[in-house]
Amino acid sequence: MNDIEILGNLDKGQNFVKSVEEKKFLFSLVISYTETSEIPGITIAGSNLDFIKFTSPADSEYLHYGTCKCIDSVPMTPDGKPTPAIMTKVALESASIPHIVINAGSKILPDIPFIETGLDHGKNIQNEPALDRYYVLRAVEYGRIIGRTLGALTDCLVIGESIPAGTTTAMAVLKGFDIDAKVSSSIPENPIELKNNVVNAALKRSKSKDAYDVIANLGDPMIPLVAGMLGTASQTCKVLLAGGTQMAAVLALGHTTGYNENNIAIGTTSYIVNDDSANFLDMIKEIADIPILIVNPKLEDSKIQGLRSYSDGFVKEGAGAGGAMISAILKTGLTSKKLLEKTEKEYQRIITLQ
Amino acid sequence: MNDIEILGNLDKGQNFVKSVEEKKFLFSLVISYTETSEIPGITIAGSNLDFIKFTSPADSEYLHYGTCKCIDSVPMTPDGKPTPAIMTKVALESASIPHIVINAGSKILPDIPFIETGLDHGKNIQNEPALDRYYVLRAVEYGRIIGRTLGALTDCLVIGESIPAGTTTAMAVLKGFDIDAKVSSSIPENPIELKNNVVNAALKRSKSKDAYDVIANLGDPMIPLVAGMLGTASQTCKVLLAGGTQMAAVLALGHTTGYNENNIAIGTTSYIVNDDSANFLDMIKEIADIPILIVNPKLEDSKIQGLRSYSDGFVKEGAGAGGAMISAILKTGLTSKKLLEKTEKEYQRIITLQ
Repeated sequence: MNDIEILGNLDKGQNFVKSVEEKKFLFSLVISYTETSEIPGITIAGSNLDFIKFTSPADSEYLHYGTCKCIDSVPMTPDGKPTPAIMTKVALESASIPHIVINAGSKILPDIPFIETGLDHGKNIQNEPALDRYYVLRAVEYGRIIGRTLGALTDCLVIGESIPAGTTTAMAVLKGFDIDAKVSSSIPENPIELKNNVVNAALKRSKSKDAYDVIANLGDPMIPLVAGMLGTASQTCKVLLAGGTQMAAVLALGHTTGYNENNIAIGTTSYIVNDDSANFLDMIKEIADIPILIVNPKLEDSKIQGLRSYSDGFVKEGAGAGGAMISAILKTGLTSKKLLEKTEKEYQRIITLQ
Repeated sequence: MNDIEILGNLDKGQNFVKSVEEKKFLFSLVISYTETSEIPGITIAGSNLDFIKFTSPADSEYLHYGTCKCIDSVPMTPDGKPTPAIMTKVALESASIPHIVINAGSKILPDIPFIETGLDHGKNIQNEPALDRYYVLRAVEYGRIIGRTLGALTDCLVIGESIPAGTTTAMAVLKGFDIDAKVSSSIPENPIELKNNVVNAALKRSKSKDAYDVIANLGDPMIPLVAGMLGTASQTCKVLLAGGTQMAAVLALGHTTGYNENNIAIGTTSYIVNDDSANFLDMIKEIADIPILIVNPKLEDSKIQGLRSYSDGFVKEGAGAGGAMISAILKTGLTSKKLLEKTEKEYQRIITLQ
């Protein structure tokens, strides 16, 4: 598995890799929404404000159908940068990995079967608490039920997420837990100042250090739901948290909700780890002694400009792309070069749909 | 497996049993609703009209929590006859079989995570067509997606259903397909005349013999959804259709939607097969050359009157109870006598909750 680098706890990482090679994987995508995404300039997900709420359901539909239903085309910026879900889809299909979407408060429902939780979306943390504490507890409890069921059905449960502005709420949660967090973003010129202002405004409200209060004040519905899933699934199978900063926030809540440290890893792209404006590795080490699996999607080698832009710092990760690629490589021995070729073919297909 | 009798195609039945013994099972419960259930006297599910719509979500919650949330207590008649979900729950727990609820148009949403399809409930077939044809096609398509995902996650997908008055819509569908159907009921004095009147009124509207038109006119949302699930899941794993007449209607639609005949069986209780007012075995043979697995829950041996009443013809089957018991026996080698003991313990527990 030359295409997967192990960082963090190396021993646990090698054990994790060995125990899931050629095994069964199940990919879950948790979609959600926070009104924090409506702050102008905070996210590139969606080229305009009206579009943001369609990002997650459109990605969900694209993973199933190869086209979208809630919008006319597959999400792509006007200059041809596609949704990171393109990498997720290619990886899952290449390795015949089944997947399921879990709705944790998306404003728009995807037009596919999905696991429903009845959770509402999060509020704008700049102005008010994200969630009622009651909903945080409910999200954890629902996550536990989902994790118990899905964990019984596979050898490795992969959990990805799609929530516009999710890095901002994750950053607020991490700081709420007194963790030194500098976060990645889907925009190359990371709007750090804007994010810091939002996070600082939210932190001013914060009094309680109770973990559920921190999430209620500063978080979003995805974080407690995934923490609950992690808690139960990691008792029965391996769990790969597919994502960057958002999964760091999940792990931080995991100190309270619990998990089996010997069964989990974070899986993400090299673009997250190499982002100088963030401090991903140090942050994870501060939170948990677990392995971090890294895949280099090698998009800088692509002949397609829209894909090359990823390696310039655009998007970097999303829709569990890194974790999906790692899963495909671990399950089938595919190379990331092969995945890139397939991604280029898929890109050519979807631009004919635009 | 002395406690499971094989009827129908014996060779296929023995192969089915052999290939799933000690393997992984996944139990799915498809919940739905038809306004046909509001015809007074047609169903015992729910002791009064207001309660009927809570039957399926309450069963779903009970399977998860051991208690219900949408109603105050576990469904039970005033004289102590419990929901058949008690047998489902005991069987699934005894054998550590994971389960998931799929909502295909329940009027009330259960307070648990479930797979959502966005389908609406069915209309009263006595007065008007059950569904738009568009929704029938959508239900089949959604079922195909769900079956593909769940089929990839297990060795044997068990599909149960919970839809009050589902025997009446199933009977109408079977007659719409020109199959000689006499149906079971959850009431010992099967209200055959009432059901026949409803079915005949519905059949008078029927012109088209197109399978989707038949379902649209006479059926309910559960039938096309389960037919879609059966179609895709049976390509990759064994499928046990857990139920009586309703699953006969699913099989009949399966002639059009397709399935792999070598991978499927019906699983139900001896009370369905021994019901003299119905003709279950002959009906299935007319539809498909598949095995029928039968479990005798031996409730007549119970010291509890509310459970003994099942063997007198009350309820007979429901919430996939027969299929769940068969799955537990096949997975773990448990006897139905042992399951009865556990069911009696569970009965003692839930009456303390009333």
